[in-house]
Amino acid sequence: MPDIKSKYERFRQKVNIIIHGTGTKAGRLFDLILLGLIVLSVLLVMMETVSGFDTKYHRTLVLLEWIITGLFTLEYLLRIISINKPWKYIFSFYGIIDLLAILPMYLSFFVVGTSVLTVIRSLRLLRLFKILNHPKFITQSTQLNQAVKASRGKIIVFIYFVLISTILIGSIMFLVEGRENGFTSIPVSIYWTIVTLTTVGYGDISPATPLGQFIASLVMILGYGIIAVPTGIVTAEIAKSAQNLALKPKKPCSACGNEDHPEDANYCPHCGHSFTTD
Amino acid sequence: MPDIKSKYERFRQKVNIIIHGTGTKAGRLFDLILLGLIVLSVLLVMMETVSGFDTKYHRTLVLLEWIITGLFTLEYLLRIISINKPWKYIFSFYGIIDLLAILPMYLSFFVVGTSVLTVIRSLRLLRLFKILNHPKFITQSTQLNQAVKASRGKIIVFIYFVLISTILIGSIMFLVEGRENGFTSIPVSIYWTIVTLTTVGYGDISPATPLGQFIASLVMILGYGIIAVPTGIVTAEIAKSAQNLALKPKKPCSACGNEDHPEDANYCPHCGHSFTTD
Amino acid sequence: MPDIKSKYERFRQKVNIIIHGTGTKAGRLFDLILLGLIVLSVLLVMMETVSGFDTKYHRTLVLLEWIITGLFTLEYLLRIISINKPWKYIFSFYGIIDLLAILPMYLSFFVVGTSVLTVIRSLRLLRLFKILNHPKFITQSTQLNQAVKASRGKIIVFIYFVLISTILIGSIMFLVEGRENGFTSIPVSIYWTIVTLTTVGYGDISPATPLGQFIASLVMILGYGIIAVPTGIVTAEIAKSAQNLALKPKKPCSACGNEDHPEDANYCPHCGHSFTTD
Amino acid sequence: MPDIKSKYERFRQKVNIIIHGTGTKAGRLFDLILLGLIVLSVLLVMMETVSGFDTKYHRTLVLLEWIITGLFTLEYLLRIISINKPWKYIFSFYGIIDLLAILPMYLSFFVVGTSVLTVIRSLRLLRLFKILNHPKFITQSTQLNQAVKASRGKIIVFIYFVLISTILIGSIMFLVEGRENGFTSIPVSIYWTIVTLTTVGYGDISPATPLGQFIASLVMILGYGIIAVPTGIVTAEIAKSAQNLALKPKKPCSACGNEDHPEDANYCPHCGHSFTTD
Repeated sequence: MPDIKSKYERFRQKVNIIIHGTGTKAGRLFDLILLGLIVLSVLLVMMETVSGFDTKYHRTLVLLEWIITGLFTLEYLLRIISINKPWKYIFSFYGIIDLLAILPMYLSFFVVGTSVLTVIRSLRLLRLFKILNHPKFITQSTQLNQAVKASRGKIIVFIYFVLISTILIGSIMFLVEGRENGFTSIPVSIYWTIVTLTTVGYGDISPATPLGQFIASLVMILGYGIIAVPTGIVTAEIAKSAQNLALKPKKPCSACGNEDHPEDANYCPHCGHSFTTD
Repeated sequence: MPDIKSKYERFRQKVNIIIHGTGTKAGRLFDLILLGLIVLSVLLVMMETVSGFDTKYHRTLVLLEWIITGLFTLEYLLRIISINKPWKYIFSFYGIIDLLAILPMYLSFFVVGTSVLTVIRSLRLLRLFKILNHPKFITQSTQLNQAVKASRGKIIVFIYFVLISTILIGSIMFLVEGRENGFTSIPVSIYWTIVTLTTVGYGDISPATPLGQFIASLVMILGYGIIAVPTGIVTAEIAKSAQNLALKPKKPCSACGNEDHPEDANYCPHCGHSFTTD
Repeated sequence: MPDIKSKYERFRQKVNIIIHGTGTKAGRLFDLILLGLIVLSVLLVMMETVSGFDTKYHRTLVLLEWIITGLFTLEYLLRIISINKPWKYIFSFYGIIDLLAILPMYLSFFVVGTSVLTVIRSLRLLRLFKILNHPKFITQSTQLNQAVKASRGKIIVFIYFVLISTILIGSIMFLVEGRENGFTSIPVSIYWTIVTLTTVGYGDISPATPLGQFIASLVMILGYGIIAVPTGIVTAEIAKSAQNLALKPKKPCSACGNEDHPEDANYCPHCGHSFTTD
Repeated sequence: MPDIKSKYERFRQKVNIIIHGTGTKAGRLFDLILLGLIVLSVLLVMMETVSGFDTKYHRTLVLLEWIITGLFTLEYLLRIISINKPWKYIFSFYGIIDLLAILPMYLSFFVVGTSVLTVIRSLRLLRLFKILNHPKFITQSTQLNQAVKASRGKIIVFIYFVLISTILIGSIMFLVEGRENGFTSIPVSIYWTIVTLTTVGYGDISPATPLGQFIASLVMILGYGIIAVPTGIVTAEIAKSAQNLALKPKKPCSACGNEDHPEDANYCPHCGHSFTTD
C-alpha cells in the first residue's frame, strides 16, 4: 500500500509545516491558537487556587481543563509524528515541558489530587519562552542575552562577594539583636540581611536595639550603593554591544576579502593590496 | 450683515491667538491662568475626599468647583469656536480630556453623586501633559521620549521574561508556603512575587517557612540584579542619543574633503584651506 | 594712638589667615577643631532627644552645649571682625547659618525651651557642606555638581511626568480600594502611590482587593522600570563629563594660542598657521 | 644528622607546593578540600544557632566541629612550618583570620560557651575571599576593584552629602511627627530617614501626620532619584575600564609611525609597509 504510505507522508509534511513554520498562514494561525491556549490554561490553573472562585465554578474549570489537556495531547502526538527524529524532541527541554503540561491531568486519575499536580501544570508557561525566538523579537532577545552572558563573569564575582558579606552581617546581627528581637538563628538573620541589602524591607523582622539599627543603617547604605555595580556592568555591556552593532560592515578588500581595516586605509592591512587601485 | 460676520471672524482669530499662541503676552497669560486653574481644580478634587476637610468647607468647595467648571466650559466652547476643524479637536485625545473635565459636574444633577464622578475630574490632570510640548521643555522631553521609544523593543522582551518568571515563582511559592502563611491563591502569590521582585516589599505577606524564606532570598537577589537590565537599556539609549546630538555631521573641507574640524574652524586643520572663502 | 590701631589691624589679619586660610598650619588646625566642634554639637543635639540618656546626663549636656555655644559665638564675632565687608558675610547663606547655630541657646533664656529650638541647632550641620569646597574634594564635587546640573532639565521633565502619574494613580486607587482598606482620601492614596512607585513599600497601607493588587502590581513594575530613566540621564552626563576631562589639554597653536584642534592637525583650524613649522 | 634535616626540608617544600601551588594536581585537590571544609564549618555554625536543630543533633554538631577544628589546626601548623617567613604570615590579615578560625573552640574549654565564640567562627568565611585571587576570577575581580577604587572619591563626596541630608531630614521629622508617632528621638528619626531614603521601607516606623507623609514623599522621591548618582559614577568607571582594556596601545608602523591598524595586521594600512619585515 504505497499510496497510504505516501498519503501519510504528505500528512506528516503538512503537519510539520503548520507546527514549525511561521511562514505560512496556517502556521501563524496555529502559533496564535497555541499561544491563546497556553495563556488560557495558565489562567485556569490560577483560578483553581482561588478558593471562592473554585467552589463556584469547579465543574466548568475541570471541563475546560480536560478540553485543553486533550488539545495539548493531540499537539504532543502530532509533534512526535511529524518530526523526523522524535526521540530527540521527546528528551529535549521543550519536549519534556510539553509532556509535563499534559501528564498531571492523567495522573490525577490514580493519585488523589494534591495541589502539587495542579502547580506542575504551570510549567506550561515555560513554553511561552519559545516566543522570544520569533523573528520579531530575536534581535532584541539575542542582544540582551549576549550582554547578560558577557557580564556573567563579573556578576558571579559580585554575587560571591555579596553572599559572603550577607553571611557575615547575618552572624553579627544575630549576636547584636538576638533571639528576643526576631533574629532567632543565623539563617534567619541572613534572610533579614538579604531582605535589607536588596532594599526589599518587608518589616517582618526589623532591628530594635540602637546598635542593631545603626548596623542596619550601614547595611542599607551599602545595599543602596552596591546596586550600582551590577547596573554598571550590564550597562557597559549593552552600550558596547549596541556600539558594535552600529559599526557598519566595511567593504572587503578585493584581493583577500579582509574586512578588518580602518575606514580611511589606503592599503589592506592583511595582504598589502592598494585600495586606491580598486 | 457682512460687518457682523467679519467682526465674529476677527473675534475668532483673536481667541485663536490667545488660546494657541505662546508668542503673545495675552497667550502666555492665558496659559498661566489655565495652568493655575487646573492645579487648583485638582487640589479641590483631592480636598473633597479628605473627610474632615469636606464636612467643614463643603459649601465653599462646591462653589469653587462650579466656578472652575464654568470657566472650563467657557474655554471648551471658545476652543470649538476658534478652531477651523472643530470636530477634529472634539474627538482628539485632549478634546475628550477637556470634555471629561467638565462633564462630571453637569452629570451630578442627574446622578446622585457617586465618588466615581469626583475622581473622573482628576483626569483634568492629563491636560498638564500638554506643557511638555512647551518650547522650554520640548528638547528634553523629545530626547527622553526617543530614548524610551528606542529601548521599547528590549524593554518588552525584558518585561515578558519577568512576567513569566513571576507566574512560575508565584506558583512555586503557593506550593511551598500554602494558604496558612498568607499565600491564599496563585494570583496572590504572584502579587507577592511582584512586590518582592521589584524590591517594594510591603510585608503584608511574607514567607514563614525556611524553604519559603530561602526561595524569597533568591527572588530578592534576582530582582536586585535584573533591575540592571532595563537601566542598562535606557542608559545606553540616552547616551547614544546624547552622542548623536553632539555629533552633528559637519560640512567637509572643499579642498581636501576632511570633516574632522572644530565647528568654528576658519581653516581646515588637514590642508590649511581657508573656510571663509568657501 | 596709631600703635593700637595697627596692632588691631595686625590681629585682624592674623585672625583672617587662621579662619580663612587652609595654607597655614594654624589655619588647618582651626578647620579641624571647628569640624570636631560641629560634629560634637550635632551629637549633643541628638543625644538630648534620647529620653533615657537626657534624664541621666542632663546637666552635662547643658554644660557642654553652653561651652560649644560660647566657642561658636567667639568664632562668629572673630569672623565679623576679621572680614573686610562684615555685612556681606552676615547676610550670606553661611553667615545666617552661623547665627542660627548660636541664637537658639540665647533665646532659651526668654522662651521656655520648646524642642523647635533644639532642632534649629541641627542646622549647624549645614556648615559641614563647606568642606566640599576643600581642595581635596573640589574636583569630585564640581564634577558631580556639573553632571547633576546638566541633567536638571531632563530630570525636571521626568519628575513632572511622575508627579502627574502619581496623582492619577492615587485617584484611581482611592476609587478601587476605598476608605475601608486604608485609602482614606486621595492625598493618602497619592502618598501610597509614591511609597509604592519608589519601591519603598512601608506596608502601612497596602491594597486588599484583587483589582487593587493588580493595579498595585502594574505600579510596581512601572516604578521598577522608570528608575532606569533618571539613572540613564545621570550616567550619560557623568560619562560625558568624565570623557571631557580625559581629553588631555592640547598644545596651543604658537601663532594664535587656539587649543581646539584635532590631535593630528597639520594646520591650526583657527588661524591657518602650519604646525609642522613649530 | 644532615639526612633528617634534608628530609624535613623536602617535606617542607612538598607541603609548600601543595598549600600554595595551584599548578599541581595535589595543590588543586588541597584547595578544593579546604573550600569544602570552610563551607561545611560555616554551615555548622549556622545550624548550631537553629534551636530545634541544635537540641536534636547537638552531639553530632560538636563532634564535627572538633574534627574540622583539628583539620584547620593541622593546616595552620603546616602553613607556619612550610613558609620561609612564618611571622610575616602569622601577623598577616589571612594569618589572623586562620587563627581566629581555630581559637574559639580551644577557648571554649576555659570560657563557658557564649554565643560570641560561636559567631567568631563565622570569620572563617573571610578565607573564601582568597578565591577571588584565583586565576579564573582575577581579571574580573581586578577590573571591578579598579572601577570601585576609581569612583571612590566621588562616592565619598556623595555619601557625605547623603549623611548630612539624612541628619537634617531626621531632625525635621522628629519635630513634625514627634514621639507619639514612633519618632522617639533624633537618632531613631535618622534611622527612619535612612530606611526611607534607601527605599528599604520596613514600615516599623512610618509617618502618621499629613505633613509628615508629605515630607516622607519628598524624601522617597529624592532617594529614588539620587540612586542615579552612585550608579552613574560606577557605570562610567566600568565603561571606561572596559574601554581601556579594549584599547591596548599598539606598536606603530616603523615606516610611517601610523598606529591605527588591526592587531593582526601584516601591512600598515597607511603606507603599505610590510610588518613581517619589522
